[in-house]
Amino acid sequence: MADKKKTDIHLALIHYPVCNKVGETVTSSVTTLDVHDISRAAKTYAVDSFYVVTPLKTQRELVERLIEHWMTGYGAEYNPTRKEALLTTRVGNNLKETIKDIAKRYGETPTTVATGARQFPQSIGFSRLRGELERGGSFLLMFGTGWGLDNSILQGADYVLDPIDGIGGYNHLPVRSAIAIILDRLLSDR
Amino acid sequence: MADKKKTDIHLALIHYPVCNKVGETVTSSVTTLDVHDISRAAKTYAVDSFYVVTPLKTQRELVERLIEHWMTGYGAEYNPTRKEALLTTRVGNNLKETIKDIAKRYGETPTTVATGARQFPQSIGFSRLRGELERGGSFLLMFGTGWGLDNSILQGADYVLDPIDGIGGYNHLPVRSAIAIILDRLLSDR
Repeated sequence: MADKKKTDIHLALIHYPVCNKVGETVTSSVTTLDVHDISRAAKTYAVDSFYVVTPLKTQRELVERLIEHWMTGYGAEYNPTRKEALLTTRVGNNLKETIKDIAKRYGETPTTVATGARQFPQSIGFSRLRGELERGGSFLLMFGTGWGLDNSILQGADYVLDPIDGIGGYNHLPVRSAIAIILDRLLSDR
Repeated sequence: MADKKKTDIHLALIHYPVCNKVGETVTSSVTTLDVHDISRAAKTYAVDSFYVVTPLKTQRELVERLIEHWMTGYGAEYNPTRKEALLTTRVGNNLKETIKDIAKRYGETPTTVATGARQFPQSIGFSRLRGELERGGSFLLMFGTGWGLDNSILQGADYVLDPIDGIGGYNHLPVRSAIAIILDRLLSDR
């Protein structure tokens, strides 16, 4: 068939390994508000799946309970837009298993794209990545909580997306705001 | 002088009059996380001032205490990026007083731009508003909490900005994410 190749977009919000304020590798806590805000942004830009990735079983269970509450409990009736947003939200134990899960569900190992505040050898600009996405395939955009993704993830990624260039050099957006801007730059219809 | 005219950008996060879920006009509560997230987005895009507007004195005091904590208290030392973000954050009693305050501080009554999820006679697209901003002057972007700005504000605004066009018609971004995207579309250097 001559159809344009489909592009699958997946997000991973990573809680380990990430940096803390002084650059140490740590596990950050899941923020339920991140889950809601990022699920809504994912739904707005028709992202295929959004993984909350943490090695802590109790935290994964927290996210699962949250999803269940809004999907089937009183929450589903009270706020259907929240239910709709959470349809593609999942939990993951670590990055490797998340990538495997995407490969299993979509039949293709995703190209990994790390995000962060610095430049790397495999750094790529927004318009070039938009072009890559338009060619089709499966992509996993990886976002770090805390003070950002650990170097091991940045170095192991297929691409690192350029930082968001504001005005005047301030570079401290909350991850939920950064994700909203990045999805808009990469996926909006402009 | 032949210098390009300066553009001042101000934001107002409005808690009254806004709509609730069933379309009634209500006063919404201040969410401290909105204050932090929007202050960071405002700082990222070099916005001149960000007003948290509520008629409730106790809520204005809450925001003032929050600002003071991060500006001068232990918080200023613990997290200087939060302090820096809050430098332009202020409180306002209502929209009229906020506009007066901007006029007094910047010597010009701002052009008001309402944001929301619907089209209005004075609706304006992102690229046209970018063009207006580039011509210089003072602008106040107004954002509604709860289920959005009351009709009285939308009808009284000089412009209403087009809704954020995602993919697939889902239109329920949190206000803090919508503001991040709108500032990026209007003010980023792309």
